[in-house]
Amino acid sequence: MGHAAAGGRPGRRRMVVVGGDAAGMSAASQARRLKGPDALEIVAFERGHFTSYSACGIPYWVGGEVPGPDRLIARTPEEHRARDIDVRLRTEVTELDLDGQRVRSRDLESGSEAWTGYDHLVLATGARPVRPPLPGIDAPGVHGVQTLDDGRALLDTLTTARGRRAVVVGAGYIGVEMAEALLNRGYEVTVLDMAEEPMSTLDPDMGRLVRRAMEDMGIAVVGGARVTEVLTGPDGRVRAVVAEGAEYPADVVVLGIGVTPETGLARAAGLPLGAYGGLLTDLSMRVRGREDVWAGGDCVEVLDLVSGRERHIPLGTHANKQGQVIGANVGGGYGTFPGVVGTAVSKVCSLEIARTGLRERDAREVGLRFTAVTVESTSRAGYYPGAAPMAVKMLAELRTGRLLGVQIVGREGAGKRVDIAAVALTAGLTVEQVVSLDLGYAPPFSPVWDPVQVAARKAVAALA
Amino acid sequence: MGHAAAGGRPGRRRMVVVGGDAAGMSAASQARRLKGPDALEIVAFERGHFTSYSACGIPYWVGGEVPGPDRLIARTPEEHRARDIDVRLRTEVTELDLDGQRVRSRDLESGSEAWTGYDHLVLATGARPVRPPLPGIDAPGVHGVQTLDDGRALLDTLTTARGRRAVVVGAGYIGVEMAEALLNRGYEVTVLDMAEEPMSTLDPDMGRLVRRAMEDMGIAVVGGARVTEVLTGPDGRVRAVVAEGAEYPADVVVLGIGVTPETGLARAAGLPLGAYGGLLTDLSMRVRGREDVWAGGDCVEVLDLVSGRERHIPLGTHANKQGQVIGANVGGGYGTFPGVVGTAVSKVCSLEIARTGLRERDAREVGLRFTAVTVESTSRAGYYPGAAPMAVKMLAELRTGRLLGVQIVGREGAGKRVDIAAVALTAGLTVEQVVSLDLGYAPPFSPVWDPVQVAARKAVAALA
Repeated sequence: MGHAAAGGRPGRRRMVVVGGDAAGMSAASQARRLKGPDALEIVAFERGHFTSYSACGIPYWVGGEVPGPDRLIARTPEEHRARDIDVRLRTEVTELDLDGQRVRSRDLESGSEAWTGYDHLVLATGARPVRPPLPGIDAPGVHGVQTLDDGRALLDTLTTARGRRAVVVGAGYIGVEMAEALLNRGYEVTVLDMAEEPMSTLDPDMGRLVRRAMEDMGIAVVGGARVTEVLTGPDGRVRAVVAEGAEYPADVVVLGIGVTPETGLARAAGLPLGAYGGLLTDLSMRVRGREDVWAGGDCVEVLDLVSGRERHIPLGTHANKQGQVIGANVGGGYGTFPGVVGTAVSKVCSLEIARTGLRERDAREVGLRFTAVTVESTSRAGYYPGAAPMAVKMLAELRTGRLLGVQIVGREGAGKRVDIAAVALTAGLTVEQVVSLDLGYAPPFSPVWDPVQVAARKAVAALA
Repeated sequence: MGHAAAGGRPGRRRMVVVGGDAAGMSAASQARRLKGPDALEIVAFERGHFTSYSACGIPYWVGGEVPGPDRLIARTPEEHRARDIDVRLRTEVTELDLDGQRVRSRDLESGSEAWTGYDHLVLATGARPVRPPLPGIDAPGVHGVQTLDDGRALLDTLTTARGRRAVVVGAGYIGVEMAEALLNRGYEVTVLDMAEEPMSTLDPDMGRLVRRAMEDMGIAVVGGARVTEVLTGPDGRVRAVVAEGAEYPADVVVLGIGVTPETGLARAAGLPLGAYGGLLTDLSMRVRGREDVWAGGDCVEVLDLVSGRERHIPLGTHANKQGQVIGANVGGGYGTFPGVVGTAVSKVCSLEIARTGLRERDAREVGLRFTAVTVESTSRAGYYPGAAPMAVKMLAELRTGRLLGVQIVGREGAGKRVDIAAVALTAGLTVEQVVSLDLGYAPPFSPVWDPVQVAARKAVAALA
């Protein structure tokens, strides 16, 4: 029976979605595919101006490679509305009343508030950039890059900035991608990170390869640099970043320190959160302990199938899959999200960086003993034009020989090779089994032993 | 105890290798890594002029993309000899005496013959191009492309040919790669094939995409064309190819009809051969029923892990792995070659073509019932520069949902994506599990759903 507060036709249910990006709108779209508007009413609240956009595309929009923001929008509010999804933009959900099965929302333009009842609640509130409470951090010219609105604001700053010096704080994926974007815009770029080496999602030995390549591109990479202050000029705008006592002049600052799950509403409502502050769900993406509340995307923690631990991995690809699963289940079908193996791929100009599974520190942390090997190979047969070097690091468990993780740093053709290891990790293959895999070979595509297999051979030898 | 005929030090064994390319020399090298010359003597007979070369690289040498033939040689006879492997070039093994544990060889220069005893015999005799007994097939200007000597002879013809018309007979991997090579050399290229569509290692609907792309490149592709005669001019050289009553003028003809295992010696010695004429081995690459005879490379049949049948798949990557396994076992270590899933990747100019697992006809042949779906996707996020279209076809078993095969036709970034499916096939994943895989995603590398997963989603829906 439909929720009384919905006030609709008898038997009609209402699905309320909080957050109109990847997870939320995938859930809405998939539920709509399975159930028509007579059976299911769908209301989606989004506090921003856009729906279903690719936040991952923002660095390329800022860098000028992709026209934006329209091209980054997979589906507009109008397109969703045409499919009977009631999208309410610029409307923020301010409270969850789980016992009453209703949410309170506020129209950000008019300030008016309302309660909306639900039968199924989908929390897809995303994540927000970490913004340490430093002096000057909110000065004009300091930007996060999480939403299309953030991208637009950053581009406005780039258009009006007097100088051409950029400081990127944080050398993770967003940081290195923004370094490329700013380089493409003609900026002199300095990247500051607390860790010694960039890309701390890799082991430091592989991060070092990234640093060297970035330095060769003309990007200054400063490790071991904790930012303590943002200095402003007489006009109140950013003029420099201070780290470890040194001043780094800046006409624009981009924060790429990472994100944290946006789960304030969920916390206030008493929903279960994990160690990283993300919502905890079951395999069907139902919030643990609640029959009628679902969650997906950057606001949830996911099961890491290799370590058996929950992690927070904000990535559009997971958000889409999780939304799809929620939509299937709410729509009367069936779907699960079994977990992740921690695959990520990124690039800085022509450098490709990929990882999957566990780093050395992750493996140690969960009590695994392992061997780690690194090899140099090439993307194509050595004699074939364009064969580019790549380094592949591989971790394998002692005794069992099970593959635990792979990290790749190289040029064209390096990044997506990590998928071989991602599938092997999911299937629980040993490095010996990886050696025997029947992978695509022809000189323009691979050496006769794929680089991942070259690493696996070395791992097998190291385990013997 | 060492073989008496070896006449060497007591306890010293002798490994005799027949065939000095990928499988044979990988076996020799790996055995040498494990056992020094005091424990193991290694003799390798090769009837040609080269060892350890990449036959797969010949089309790129002919096409002028790779200087040759030196660059195609992974290890020269001198390099092998420096590691105490006694390589005897231009020496053909003419008889196997299995009861006497010896082989007879003939020096192709002097004609002298000799018997050599062995403790371990490794048959790595490769394959030879199919050359149907048609009138004119042996005329000057008609070339196979199996060995470096073949490549050299073809290049000589290209240098001296009067005209610029080439006919390629056979539209499999070698055929389409040679079509590209000849196009690069400025030839007008016609490809003739008995099948209606090129690349019969794909289903015809995917082959059709290849034909259209080849035609767009200016290659004439004639399907349903059985060659009946090669016509020669007054100088005795090829001048045209006749198929289905039509004459195709040709200054050069390349045969890419396929290859057949070179197992005449093995057959004469009574060794077990399969339905395709290849040697049958166990998982350690020992010839079935023989303790002291091993075989690997293009002369063996391999177990297809998806169909459970033996197949003949002549590919350098298998040859290298099998050689490695043989060398490990002869050298006192342990290794197996568990089988293949039928992965292959190729390109014609910018077109990438890949397959793994079963085609529709393969699945039917072994009694599997399945659903087949095809999707169009892109290599990168749709908005990212260089996003190229690709078609992905996927077969999944009815009821179980097990992945059975994938075929991909696209541009840059299409080919090696087949590895995702190759690993999934090896692990026996269902299409539902493929949908959930944690694959590398970032806009320059993939849409948010990898094309293989887009196909898997459609397969899941088709199975429901």
